[in-house]
Amino acid sequence: MPRLLGSIDSPADLKKIPVAELSELAEEIRQEIIDTTQLTGGHLASSLGAVELSIALHRVFDSPRDKIIWDVGHQSYAHKLLTGRRELFRTLRQMGGISGFPVRDESPHDAFGAGHASTSVSAALGMAAARDLKNENYHVIAVIGDGSITGGMAFEGLNNSAHLGARLIVILNDNGMSISPTVGGLSKLLSQARFDHRLHHAAERGKRIVTSLPGGKTLWDFARRLKSGVRGLVLPTVLWEELGFAYMGPVDGHDTAELEAALTRARMYTRRPVLLHAVTTKGKGYKPAEDDAICFHGISPKQSAVKVSPSYSQVFAETMLKIMRDDPDVAVITAAMPEGNCLGEVQQAFASRVFDVGICEQHAVTFAAGLAAQGIRPVVAIYSTFLQRSLDQILHDVALQKLPVVFALDRGGIVGDDGKTHQGIFDLSYLSLIPNLIVSAPKDENDLQHLLYTAVYGGSPMAVRYPRGPGLGVRLDGELRRLPIGQGEMLRLGCDLAILAVGSAVETALEAAGEMAAMGVKAAVVNMRFIKPIDGELIAQLSRNTARFLTVEENVLCGGFGSAVTAHMRQKGIEAKIHTIGIPDEFVPHGTQRELRARYGLDSLGIVRAALVAYPELALTRDDLVKT
Amino acid sequence: MPRLLGSIDSPADLKKIPVAELSELAEEIRQEIIDTTQLTGGHLASSLGAVELSIALHRVFDSPRDKIIWDVGHQSYAHKLLTGRRELFRTLRQMGGISGFPVRDESPHDAFGAGHASTSVSAALGMAAARDLKNENYHVIAVIGDGSITGGMAFEGLNNSAHLGARLIVILNDNGMSISPTVGGLSKLLSQARFDHRLHHAAERGKRIVTSLPGGKTLWDFARRLKSGVRGLVLPTVLWEELGFAYMGPVDGHDTAELEAALTRARMYTRRPVLLHAVTTKGKGYKPAEDDAICFHGISPKQSAVKVSPSYSQVFAETMLKIMRDDPDVAVITAAMPEGNCLGEVQQAFASRVFDVGICEQHAVTFAAGLAAQGIRPVVAIYSTFLQRSLDQILHDVALQKLPVVFALDRGGIVGDDGKTHQGIFDLSYLSLIPNLIVSAPKDENDLQHLLYTAVYGGSPMAVRYPRGPGLGVRLDGELRRLPIGQGEMLRLGCDLAILAVGSAVETALEAAGEMAAMGVKAAVVNMRFIKPIDGELIAQLSRNTARFLTVEENVLCGGFGSAVTAHMRQKGIEAKIHTIGIPDEFVPHGTQRELRARYGLDSLGIVRAALVAYPELALTRDDLVKT
Repeated sequence: MPRLLGSIDSPADLKKIPVAELSELAEEIRQEIIDTTQLTGGHLASSLGAVELSIALHRVFDSPRDKIIWDVGHQSYAHKLLTGRRELFRTLRQMGGISGFPVRDESPHDAFGAGHASTSVSAALGMAAARDLKNENYHVIAVIGDGSITGGMAFEGLNNSAHLGARLIVILNDNGMSISPTVGGLSKLLSQARFDHRLHHAAERGKRIVTSLPGGKTLWDFARRLKSGVRGLVLPTVLWEELGFAYMGPVDGHDTAELEAALTRARMYTRRPVLLHAVTTKGKGYKPAEDDAICFHGISPKQSAVKVSPSYSQVFAETMLKIMRDDPDVAVITAAMPEGNCLGEVQQAFASRVFDVGICEQHAVTFAAGLAAQGIRPVVAIYSTFLQRSLDQILHDVALQKLPVVFALDRGGIVGDDGKTHQGIFDLSYLSLIPNLIVSAPKDENDLQHLLYTAVYGGSPMAVRYPRGPGLGVRLDGELRRLPIGQGEMLRLGCDLAILAVGSAVETALEAAGEMAAMGVKAAVVNMRFIKPIDGELIAQLSRNTARFLTVEENVLCGGFGSAVTAHMRQKGIEAKIHTIGIPDEFVPHGTQRELRARYGLDSLGIVRAALVAYPELALTRDDLVKT
Repeated sequence: MPRLLGSIDSPADLKKIPVAELSELAEEIRQEIIDTTQLTGGHLASSLGAVELSIALHRVFDSPRDKIIWDVGHQSYAHKLLTGRRELFRTLRQMGGISGFPVRDESPHDAFGAGHASTSVSAALGMAAARDLKNENYHVIAVIGDGSITGGMAFEGLNNSAHLGARLIVILNDNGMSISPTVGGLSKLLSQARFDHRLHHAAERGKRIVTSLPGGKTLWDFARRLKSGVRGLVLPTVLWEELGFAYMGPVDGHDTAELEAALTRARMYTRRPVLLHAVTTKGKGYKPAEDDAICFHGISPKQSAVKVSPSYSQVFAETMLKIMRDDPDVAVITAAMPEGNCLGEVQQAFASRVFDVGICEQHAVTFAAGLAAQGIRPVVAIYSTFLQRSLDQILHDVALQKLPVVFALDRGGIVGDDGKTHQGIFDLSYLSLIPNLIVSAPKDENDLQHLLYTAVYGGSPMAVRYPRGPGLGVRLDGELRRLPIGQGEMLRLGCDLAILAVGSAVETALEAAGEMAAMGVKAAVVNMRFIKPIDGELIAQLSRNTARFLTVEENVLCGGFGSAVTAHMRQKGIEAKIHTIGIPDEFVPHGTQRELRARYGLDSLGIVRAALVAYPELALTRDDLVKT
């Protein structure tokens, strides 16, 4: 363990480090973050950008008494290293290890959990309000990136902070990037200030010279007032001050001394909220990440060079390319995730038809509804977990109006090491409750391309939900075709049991059926493809051959696929027994996809076991297997 | 039908009206709106405030070619009267009649449906982008109130509009009110501009004088530049211009000529979006509504003075008063609905503990989570339909962190005449899928007060969902008490059938059981109280006496209460039959609560009929009834 970092078990130890050694400490922290993420994967670039900020915060403030709230939490690794989790750091994102995000249960220094963007100001304001109601006295600090601040919720929080005039510090960690470069009118404003930051140093030199003259202080103050009178028109100062914030900055977010001085000043405002604008470099201190912060935003653990199949995201993008090449009326919307959605090539080919709207999932959906209302066929590509932000917009702006918007939900199901806030395990439920919406999930990447095509030309609102990670490596048909809506696909016959599966669970169900066959159990397997509408005809047909059903899905059981099949069978008076496999009523922690699937019985062994437990008569001759 | 309005069947007719007669037309429209809403109820004050704006818009633009998008739609009555719905206007909000909101199916002039706030800019931008992609040429105009613009989604839309530099007109209809006075930092900014509006007239006079002098034009321009240099610091002009909008205004939103001139100018911007700031008076032209715009925001039809029981909202507020009187750590959050939530008295008594956060349902929830994290017991009072905006925040910021936030969902179930966008019929489903969240619904107002108390002191995230309208008139216990979590209440014994009901359906189920008793059918009735967790013990006990279950809920069947009971019974291997009654997979139109309950079989007759259809053996001796 490095010399300085090795001595820090809590922020109190950090405060003992001499100022002169802080840059060495920063280097040690950077190295630890780089080394660890090589092994574990993780959000590298953001965390590298916030090292000095984390040091300064923990030196000026007194956590956990003072509350430091990290927006999203991508940038919290240095904070974790400085708050007693040094020894555990190499377990980052590993099953049973520490989370890649702030988590209240993990440390009292994680004042508020995060994972999705733009929540920090609201949470901080709530804490500040609680403090004031209880006549307590501590500081509350929200650290929010220039990407997250474009989310409408952040604006709601800022607006309300100003209204309440709450004592609260908001640090704008401005690196000009969310995951991809930040977009939007506000971002343009911020970059003016970033530019100004460079001017600022010249101005500081000027100030030293001027104020060293006799009477210079007054002269300088006058010049400063003059400057702000003129420059007020092009600087965000005005924006924040007019909204009711005291504005400080921009300061150099990699200069610990400058940061500490600014934070110390920020701490003194008691009657209104302060916005401290810190300019940082994403990936700071690690050349590859500085040069390509998008690529190094989140990295995967170094692996041996096993060739894997193209990911579902890639197949999604390639399909969009094919469709958009033939049809000028198709457009794609991404909410600040062009990289995650693999849209680079699509953007290059069809710049005017790929809309990156920023971290604005609500806007993304209604914007798409507007496009659809005027004859464009929009495909909204948003991760399953982030689309949770858009329930109301999908309901009203799309489904109620029957506007043919396509939702491409990437990262549906278990996503793995990002953990609880990123699992895509609720989508089948919150989408199924929406009238007029078709909900589908492909069994493999070939299914994906056809379902996308089907959705784009189906004329109805439709969701296509696919998993994180590589596809199965199946051959992609050359020609895209429309699949019949609400129709499943019989993959394997069998009369002992019918396994109905959706999405990635289909392949697993096939494996399980293979294993069961070896035990003499004949299981039919169906790729249901559609969660809504359910293929009632196929179910009726199956029920004539078997009295045992099993559904499998990577989604919470409540209101999901199994629930829909159960309801359908009950409604149609189908007397067969049914057992449902899926995620129980809990949040799913981090771990690899494989580990988590095993844990929740969503691997082939889990399916076999569940089948034999639900229908023990199947194993009458195989008692041993039930108990494994 | 009045002289001028009677001649207008479409905007084309409006354009034929001489300018001199427009104010008479405005008066006629106002009178029609006032007369109709006396009969039908409706959003009176907002619509009165937008009469001249509607006239000007339809004279300057060419709807439906040009797209006019009304945010929320509260203010769209004049628009409806001017676009061919004059004859139908008296059917406003009546079953089968026209909607109180813009609806695409209703008229080609309703370019985009609405109901929830802050969506107009996103939809308009989508349309503008579609127009540009398709090389078409028409105007897109979003009309948004100063209340709606505080919603984060509106900010997302504005920010993205600026980024795209789209040709788009946003009209800020600024009356200083959402439903209650608008709050927030932005609102303070706007009121500075409203104030400036008065100065503006003086300035215009000054301009005429100065420019009439020789060389005056140049002088005036210089003065203007100077002025904006100084005043830029205190005016929202800067805000909009810096965000990338051309800013125009403020103009008098009740001066048709001034509006027409401004709209004609706004129409000329082709390279960037324009914001036209129009200052209006909510309730304009109707003294009672001008004087009390909050009370006249939405009015109910005039009724004979039948005494009704206090509403659930009132009982909610009275309970909060009781709880907050005894406990200084309890706070209430409302999202711009202090009146709808009946919080007037609570605000008066405990001003510092009632937080009106504006139309910001996302922020409201995370703000509450922040309060809860620091020892306050927050109760978030939001209508069921509006809480759809907060799914992600309830999931992550509250439930995942197990923060004890209470959700008081008013207007759960069928709400009546506000129609499709306002029915509270999805909440049991979207709440039930959330781990760690307790979901409850009181059978009457006495249950409500105890459930609220239970929630506030339960230490877990918990939702209490209650209906719109008057309670049952039951006696309220003097002492609040904690009800056992997840435990139902047996209200009536019977061995032929067990009816499990939640919320308002409990009383109806009791009525139905009474009617069935008269037919010789013995139905048990249970107030389940909790949708999650389900009272498994009670179900097990019932299943020992009866093999027939019926669930009743005012919620979509998908993922709701009946679905939870079905899943539970299946999981526990309870072999009894079950039939579920609720809202089918569709959006519920407007009509009275009574009409809609009858339509969906959620009145006592519907329950009796469903029971006899599901279990015809019950009626073996009563063949006639099955067929009614």
